[in-house]
Amino acid sequence: MKPQPITIIGGGLVGALASMFFAKRGFDVTVLERRGDMRKAKVEAGRSINLALTSRGLKALTEVGLADEALKLAIPARGRMLHDAEGNTTFVPYGQKDDEVIYSISRGELNKLLLSKAGEYDNVTMRFNQKLEACDIDNGQYQFLDTEANQSHTVDAPVTVATDGAWSAVRKTMLSTVQNFNYAQSFEAHGYKELTIPAGPNGEYQIEKEALHIWPRASFMLMALPNLGGSFTVTLYLAYEGVQSFAALDSKEAVQAFFEKEFPDATALMPDLAEQFFANPTGALATIRCAPWRVGGKVMLLGDASHAIVPFFGQGMNSGFEDCSALGELLDSESDWATLFEKLEAERKPNAEAIADLALENFVEMRDTVADAKFQLKKEIGFELEKRYPGQFIPRYAMVVFHPEIPYAEAKRRGDEQEIVLNELSRGISSLHQVNWELADQLMQQHRAA
Amino acid sequence: MKPQPITIIGGGLVGALASMFFAKRGFDVTVLERRGDMRKAKVEAGRSINLALTSRGLKALTEVGLADEALKLAIPARGRMLHDAEGNTTFVPYGQKDDEVIYSISRGELNKLLLSKAGEYDNVTMRFNQKLEACDIDNGQYQFLDTEANQSHTVDAPVTVATDGAWSAVRKTMLSTVQNFNYAQSFEAHGYKELTIPAGPNGEYQIEKEALHIWPRASFMLMALPNLGGSFTVTLYLAYEGVQSFAALDSKEAVQAFFEKEFPDATALMPDLAEQFFANPTGALATIRCAPWRVGGKVMLLGDASHAIVPFFGQGMNSGFEDCSALGELLDSESDWATLFEKLEAERKPNAEAIADLALENFVEMRDTVADAKFQLKKEIGFELEKRYPGQFIPRYAMVVFHPEIPYAEAKRRGDEQEIVLNELSRGISSLHQVNWELADQLMQQHRAA
Repeated sequence: MKPQPITIIGGGLVGALASMFFAKRGFDVTVLERRGDMRKAKVEAGRSINLALTSRGLKALTEVGLADEALKLAIPARGRMLHDAEGNTTFVPYGQKDDEVIYSISRGELNKLLLSKAGEYDNVTMRFNQKLEACDIDNGQYQFLDTEANQSHTVDAPVTVATDGAWSAVRKTMLSTVQNFNYAQSFEAHGYKELTIPAGPNGEYQIEKEALHIWPRASFMLMALPNLGGSFTVTLYLAYEGVQSFAALDSKEAVQAFFEKEFPDATALMPDLAEQFFANPTGALATIRCAPWRVGGKVMLLGDASHAIVPFFGQGMNSGFEDCSALGELLDSESDWATLFEKLEAERKPNAEAIADLALENFVEMRDTVADAKFQLKKEIGFELEKRYPGQFIPRYAMVVFHPEIPYAEAKRRGDEQEIVLNELSRGISSLHQVNWELADQLMQQHRAA
Repeated sequence: MKPQPITIIGGGLVGALASMFFAKRGFDVTVLERRGDMRKAKVEAGRSINLALTSRGLKALTEVGLADEALKLAIPARGRMLHDAEGNTTFVPYGQKDDEVIYSISRGELNKLLLSKAGEYDNVTMRFNQKLEACDIDNGQYQFLDTEANQSHTVDAPVTVATDGAWSAVRKTMLSTVQNFNYAQSFEAHGYKELTIPAGPNGEYQIEKEALHIWPRASFMLMALPNLGGSFTVTLYLAYEGVQSFAALDSKEAVQAFFEKEFPDATALMPDLAEQFFANPTGALATIRCAPWRVGGKVMLLGDASHAIVPFFGQGMNSGFEDCSALGELLDSESDWATLFEKLEAERKPNAEAIADLALENFVEMRDTVADAKFQLKKEIGFELEKRYPGQFIPRYAMVVFHPEIPYAEAKRRGDEQEIVLNELSRGISSLHQVNWELADQLMQQHRAA
């Protein structure tokens, strides 16, 4: 594609990254962001403080030369640390290889890094405090309110990438102006609340540092990811209504009692639990799907704006970064915006659908089956099959998280097939030694044939 | 419920009917309608000119004493008349009983009847040309533009029923103001175009009057329903894009050639086919789902506003009228709006979901399998099972269309179970005489046990 001016609406993680995919190819890029410059201000607290950075996100960061710097901000987690109701722990590794780890990273710090690095390009202009007020997509005219100057102005933006997040204002315009626009926003019956386990008196991590901690309790769960500096961000996922619910936790006493009963070890590390609980907002969990993602060659939605998902596979940011990788490849091969946007949607939409479904399924796995003996056995059989049939059998989790060369849609399809094998091999047995490996051979041959 | 002022936004079929359910119980009702009074003006042409009125709709009309008058505007259709590509026809009855018919009725004439009858109640006020501009649902304040006077005014409406249709303005406000509002609008790849077969020279019907005519062509179809006065409203359902599509019908010659090849008998009856084709709009087919349908005891969406469906089961209006029946029952038993609205949604939402799914399934049946020998055989076996197991086996179509005492959700569930029986009994045979009735006995016993 011949370099020309590009407008990016939204300077969050995906918008900041996308700007560099354009800038390094010689495009002049203007990024307009609703909030102030987060490099100068404090990040809003209480929502999605840290994220899991995994191979698909790292691949995109590598393409703009930022993977190493991003990893300096991150802490590896080598597996899940399961906490039972008595405070006993079991460690379950994510994979069998040393590099099969995920990285806990601060959303704010990573976003600042991306903005700083984007700002180093001469051909990237960033404008903050720009609230989108109206879009005339057909004519490429976008009206913004400069919230500092309190003045409206119109931006001429014939080619626009909208990375303005799950509640995208550009998508909202498309919802009311694009004929036959398919749209769905679907909320879970669970919300979430972020809390903090502080660092110990000497700045030490009070629970295992290199792990994603889970307190699975079937209908709800607690999770914790490490931060730089010794603290953990803890997230409670809980139904809004019912016996065990946010509605029932209506007093400090109720919160304290609930946590002490369900998560005694975590509770002991949060002396100000009840204060935190009522100071922090309760977040909602939504899946957003739409089609088309674009209007001709004029505007294209990417990242959460076109495919917001629930966080249970840690792939929201990673899938948005993968959008940028795909965009980069098409910028090198296409010469027409309408075709480029069409191909980008054709490539990314099935994968966005797949990871949306996988993330919903993983919520059940994390809060429920992860603590189950059958689940553990199937995990062990999966690892053994991976050793015996290298390249042919790759556990579903590994395909999604450690194998960016396997698209999400393929990972879902292969994972569904493998699940049949795992169910067959684990039927009626209770340990890995009892597996019928001849049957495994047969099943894997059928699998190969299919 | 103690009578009190009620506001109804939208004076279409469902709004006009709902007003009478309130009025006959002593409520003061104000109906505000965006369009002019259709009793005085010409109805917009080219869209949904006629509808199928069936038992659920008739039940609701009976409850306000209007069934007989409505039926005077209607023409019974006793079955489907299938037209093949050579113009040969086959008649397939809807049911085995004399009263198992559907009624073709003009949307406009029925709407006018409902408005006239609602207007006869002293406690119903109707205001036309009232365009909803803004809703403050929490405070029960709705701002309307009087499009005749070109003046805005605010209506105090603490208890509101919104029957403002598939593109409901009230629902749009809920989408942006109600927390965790679930919403999906999903369009088919097919659009539709309405055409007319005129009455013959002496006002006669040029094809069988008492039938729903179908020209099933697998990926597309033509349909015709009789009007009073001898004409038929014909609807083409066709993909937007592809080899056989609206996009391909880009000239009068292309339209004429396509119709002559696919629907020769119908084409012969439409001398001005190509003119009609380009004069009439192409309509879209959408399914709309949302939740919740209400905000506390303040406002409730009913009819298409909460559950717009595709027309292939002829149940859009009927399901909306059934909403009114359910509303009426709850008005007699409840004393609190929040509870009434909650119960109404709990009762109607699963049925709205079921008929939305059934209508989508029926599109495939109508355009594709209806002309298939296997489908015909299963239909015959179903009728025979209905005779042999009265009350226990009722064909799915009959449950939906002729049995209002069976909720849509139950009809869908039982229909799915029965489909297994029909598939089993029709396997490997080609006529009713070959059915293994002992197997049928076994299957029906299993069915009863389940």
